[in-house]
Amino acid sequence: MINDFMMQVGMMAPIIQAPMAGGVTTVELISAVSENGGLGSLGAAYLTPEVIRVTAQAIRARTDRPFAINLFVGGQEREPTNAQIDFTSDILEPWAQAYGIEAPGAPGPGIALDRQLEVVLDVAPRVFSFTFGMASPELLRACRSRGILTMGTATTVEEVKALTEAGVDSVCVQGMEAGGHRGTFLRPFEESMFGVLALTSMAVQATSLPVVAAGGLMTGGAIRAVLDLGASAASMGTAFMLCEEAGTSMAHRYMLALEKPRPTVITRAFSGRPARGIINRFHEQISAVQHLCVPFPALNDMTRDIRRAAANAGDPEALSLWAGQAYPLARDMPAASLMAVLLDEAKWFGA
Amino acid sequence: MINDFMMQVGMMAPIIQAPMAGGVTTVELISAVSENGGLGSLGAAYLTPEVIRVTAQAIRARTDRPFAINLFVGGQEREPTNAQIDFTSDILEPWAQAYGIEAPGAPGPGIALDRQLEVVLDVAPRVFSFTFGMASPELLRACRSRGILTMGTATTVEEVKALTEAGVDSVCVQGMEAGGHRGTFLRPFEESMFGVLALTSMAVQATSLPVVAAGGLMTGGAIRAVLDLGASAASMGTAFMLCEEAGTSMAHRYMLALEKPRPTVITRAFSGRPARGIINRFHEQISAVQHLCVPFPALNDMTRDIRRAAANAGDPEALSLWAGQAYPLARDMPAASLMAVLLDEAKWFGA
Repeated sequence: MINDFMMQVGMMAPIIQAPMAGGVTTVELISAVSENGGLGSLGAAYLTPEVIRVTAQAIRARTDRPFAINLFVGGQEREPTNAQIDFTSDILEPWAQAYGIEAPGAPGPGIALDRQLEVVLDVAPRVFSFTFGMASPELLRACRSRGILTMGTATTVEEVKALTEAGVDSVCVQGMEAGGHRGTFLRPFEESMFGVLALTSMAVQATSLPVVAAGGLMTGGAIRAVLDLGASAASMGTAFMLCEEAGTSMAHRYMLALEKPRPTVITRAFSGRPARGIINRFHEQISAVQHLCVPFPALNDMTRDIRRAAANAGDPEALSLWAGQAYPLARDMPAASLMAVLLDEAKWFGA
Repeated sequence: MINDFMMQVGMMAPIIQAPMAGGVTTVELISAVSENGGLGSLGAAYLTPEVIRVTAQAIRARTDRPFAINLFVGGQEREPTNAQIDFTSDILEPWAQAYGIEAPGAPGPGIALDRQLEVVLDVAPRVFSFTFGMASPELLRACRSRGILTMGTATTVEEVKALTEAGVDSVCVQGMEAGGHRGTFLRPFEESMFGVLALTSMAVQATSLPVVAAGGLMTGGAIRAVLDLGASAASMGTAFMLCEEAGTSMAHRYMLALEKPRPTVITRAFSGRPARGIINRFHEQISAVQHLCVPFPALNDMTRDIRRAAANAGDPEALSLWAGQAYPLARDMPAASLMAVLLDEAKWFGA
């Protein structure tokens, strides 16, 4: 039951722990998933090159199993205007005040993708996965020459085909159910909202590359389901967010486990880019004016201190509460136990 | 592999041919699906009581296997105003002219649901399925006393629970991938757009009733997938639309089989109620002003002649091109062959 993709990557279980940028994917979580036969992924988009390097070393100190590093390779085209910066600072000021911090000033320069990529090539994880766009031909070549398998993220059949033509090694199809940022890069995200079941069914016919399915997968039944559709593995993010190894904040954990779950929604309020999370007051207030704020990734930068302060205060109302549509099925257990439960539910005997 | 639900209904294959109101679900299609072990469904919402009776008799003349009749049990609350009627008539006039017919006048009184229900109770199909709301306790009781199994349609976990508490016999969960009208009845449809995989995963934990999954299911792999998630059967609509037995118009077939598929979108342009279909000019023009038009079902009535004329002219640009998200996977073959292919792909040996 171990398929070609798993063989190539070196996985014993058809489970990828999805890259969740923003601190959820700790060394402990990644290494636990990889140690248990899956593929842990480091969401490295917001990490400095130095932190990426040190984190990769720490993972390797814990496991000699393969892991992935994920970066954002697009969507950072627009520079914020002064008017946008002023407006954003004004609109965020009451939030900053509420948490006793200063209103955000101009966004920082951000982390240079090319320096992050240098470290990835140097560190050479088994898999380099990316989202928000297309890796350049040079980057794909450089990965290949270093024995790094590449995985692009697609939200439409059109994007699956574009990634295939670009020469990636595998494609992760992200259904509209997925928590966190949409990987859409060819069309507006509203036109790229496919259910994972429909998208996977079409993707496996549109490409001969291995397809990994993502979006709302929470149980072993869901793993079997996407394998039945022809996927080579299931990518699961939210499913791991309640694991003790995950870097999920207490306030975020609290919201994921609410007895009466709140809905999720796609919002640009936190970063400027569409992402799925549990609704809260910040989303409700900022969404209406987000188009006047600085664009991605500057907005992510300008909201960061408020989100941190809210997390420290244990207040979920100003956190980006990323979560997939089926988040009420998330289970609070150690990653190794969750892996065992998932494989048992999936009736997986390949491990 | 035949589960309790299938046993109770009398199905040999875990496939429900979904009810598609508007002429697609012909006697020939329904009886072919039921004869081949599935459950054919008559989309009867737009049919007069007399036609429902005659159609049911015609199905019974062709097969003694079980079948379902489906009706709309809600969403018809609002009466159109004169201003809405005038606006709608004006906006539709150029379309009527283009097909050489008169601009639509005031909408007719519609077909009385209670008279449709009388016939359903009298005809007593094996299954009465319904959408757009909740069947009354009296109706559910009447069905039970006549040996008719009931199936409600849910688009959220909340709706699954409401139907369960109301006492239906089974729940069809409709993922956001599904073609045609959304069954949503408790909240705005925008808040009720769950991928079928996530929704099924949650539904089977939220109810002890049999769950049928619908939305974007086109292949045997998709059937296996939803069974893996704990569903008792797959409900497939678009998958059957290219069958020669289906009442799908030539223009609609043409659009379903386009080499370069157009996107689908949820639109209120044709009926006033959100429904998924392939985009065309009518959708693009009317969607922007639909909120000023008469509400459902009056808008459906007022657009009917234009849709018919467009179909007769072989012009897809004014047709309601209902289609699920994975419609490019629809196969042009007789229903019996499609059933065999689906069961083969699903590795189903129960038949």
